Amino acid sequence: MYILAVDLGGTQIRAARCTPDGRMEGRVAIPTLAAYGPEVVLDRIRQAIRNVWPVGGEPVAALALSAPGPVDAHRGIVRFTPNIPGWKDVPLRDLMAETFRVPTFLANDANLAALGEFRFGAGRGVQDLIYLTISTGIGGGIIIDGRLYEGGQGLGGEVGHMVVEPSGPPCGCGGYGCLEAVASGTAIAREARAALEGGTASLLGHMVDNPEAITAREVAEAAAQGDNLSRRIYARAGFYVGLALVSLMYLFNPALFIIGGSVANAGALLFDPIGQTVRERAQRVYWENISIVPAALGDDVVLLGALALALERIG
Amino acid sequence: MYILAVDLGGTQIRAARCTPDGRMEGRVAIPTLAAYGPEVVLDRIRQAIRNVWPVGGEPVAALALSAPGPVDAHRGIVRFTPNIPGWKDVPLRDLMAETFRVPTFLANDANLAALGEFRFGAGRGVQDLIYLTISTGIGGGIIIDGRLYEGGQGLGGEVGHMVVEPSGPPCGCGGYGCLEAVASGTAIAREARAALEGGTASLLGHMVDNPEAITAREVAEAAAQGDNLSRRIYARAGFYVGLALVSLMYLFNPALFIIGGSVANAGALLFDPIGQTVRERAQRVYWENISIVPAALGDDVVLLGALALALERIG
Repeated sequence: MYILAVDLGGTQIRAARCTPDGRMEGRVAIPTLAAYGPEVVLDRIRQAIRNVWPVGGEPVAALALSAPGPVDAHRGIVRFTPNIPGWKDVPLRDLMAETFRVPTFLANDANLAALGEFRFGAGRGVQDLIYLTISTGIGGGIIIDGRLYEGGQGLGGEVGHMVVEPSGPPCGCGGYGCLEAVASGTAIAREARAALEGGTASLLGHMVDNPEAITAREVAEAAAQGDNLSRRIYARAGFYVGLALVSLMYLFNPALFIIGGSVANAGALLFDPIGQTVRERAQRVYWENISIVPAALGDDVVLLGALALALERIG
Repeated sequence: MYILAVDLGGTQIRAARCTPDGRMEGRVAIPTLAAYGPEVVLDRIRQAIRNVWPVGGEPVAALALSAPGPVDAHRGIVRFTPNIPGWKDVPLRDLMAETFRVPTFLANDANLAALGEFRFGAGRGVQDLIYLTISTGIGGGIIIDGRLYEGGQGLGGEVGHMVVEPSGPPCGCGGYGCLEAVASGTAIAREARAALEGGTASLLGHMVDNPEAITAREVAEAAAQGDNLSRRIYARAGFYVGLALVSLMYLFNPALFIIGGSVANAGALLFDPIGQTVRERAQRVYWENISIVPAALGDDVVLLGALALALERIG
């Protein structure tokens, strides 16, 4: 028995044939061709699924789909996606179920990554956890009582848009001072560029020809070499992540936070100020029984999460 | 069949004999005598229960207890209470169950108020809602899928300690810029006093002999008479409540917010800036299907919530 997992991204569609114990076979990645419009992208998804369909006639128990951006999980609709032009209220779940005639499930990619870590990664054995992924943007997912929590109307778990700085910079969502706007890789790079352009002395100035080339990765490298500006920028990002965790502790009182994404690769540079902020700002009863750990799974976390979703739903 | 509901407060213990349809009989309120120490308070609670115990021999199906401050709902323990000296990790649920030998339930008072509004008030028929009570402090409760959500370790739903202003004033919890620290009645009164003492012209100066006498109520009255300072202070409190609602929308994507407590009696003065902030700061898909309404129940909301908890638990 196989479950086919598909991860729709802005540039690539990844898919794999999975067994219930988390083994993956025949992994493929094909270009999304987002610029060619919604119909082409739908055909590319079908193509990816056909590429991983078992040829020996083994049964396919389910199709599990991941999409970026807000997904109406209850109705199986992709509300919109920031990186695929023209996608608005696409009933992706039912379209694929029609073509392939197997039980089909759909969820947001960060929500699925949370489920992947819960079932196969750093969250194994913990029933209540919150996962954050910090890279270009900030996404996340919430596991309550061993199940993915998608909110009352299916659009919940968007930790990246909690407001942590009311007078903060504009966010891609239209708001201001969202966690994503002040602590994502994009925000870290923006801060570094602004400081360099403002004349702040920094190793970063010697690492790149042009401030525009700076990413969060260069800032982490400079910080690792002792660069003050870069350390301050990571400390500030960690402070804001810590504030979000404080609010999440008071609301969800979870046993575990898992933090993944490329920015989390900076390790102590990010995790130390997170831990410090939490201990300084939240009451002890909220943080004394909590762990804050890095994600355990790599690039396949979303595919594994899609598999976990299908397993949860087909029982 | 009766359910006995008890609401432990810092100054009063209220209790009533309830029928499953929400009718209350023999309501009593006796002084808590908090200053006399934990053992006396426990005896006062027993006294309140005996006062409402049915004398005709009708069966008592359950005892439902409310306590202020963080309650470990899973283990039935009052962690601590801000207004009752000496209470630390009191196993209130089991102590009362031992004395009265009926199924006994315990929860935080604001959590129970949420449940009361859900079952008997403004939230009837809605399965996913968040309740806030804004008075001296700010508490709240979260209903997910028709049930009270108490967090992974039983201490969740504390909306008053979400951080909404990182550089904000200190909060009673030890943190800074919590919603409670910037939008509670206490915060509203503090802002007004500070402005008067700083020489800001305001009707408030004519309403009280001494700035120390100002409460949120006087600020609301002055605002209703067109006082600019008072209107600005309520607008700012509403802005912060709105920011908290934005974060809650992204996390829980609920269908309804219910806002109660004495400060919410200010009506449009508070609700208008809340609505405006939500529409300006959150994506449309998050607020277009949401209602923000005043609480419907009065002083008995916590007792009704305790009744609702018992009904939920005994099926």
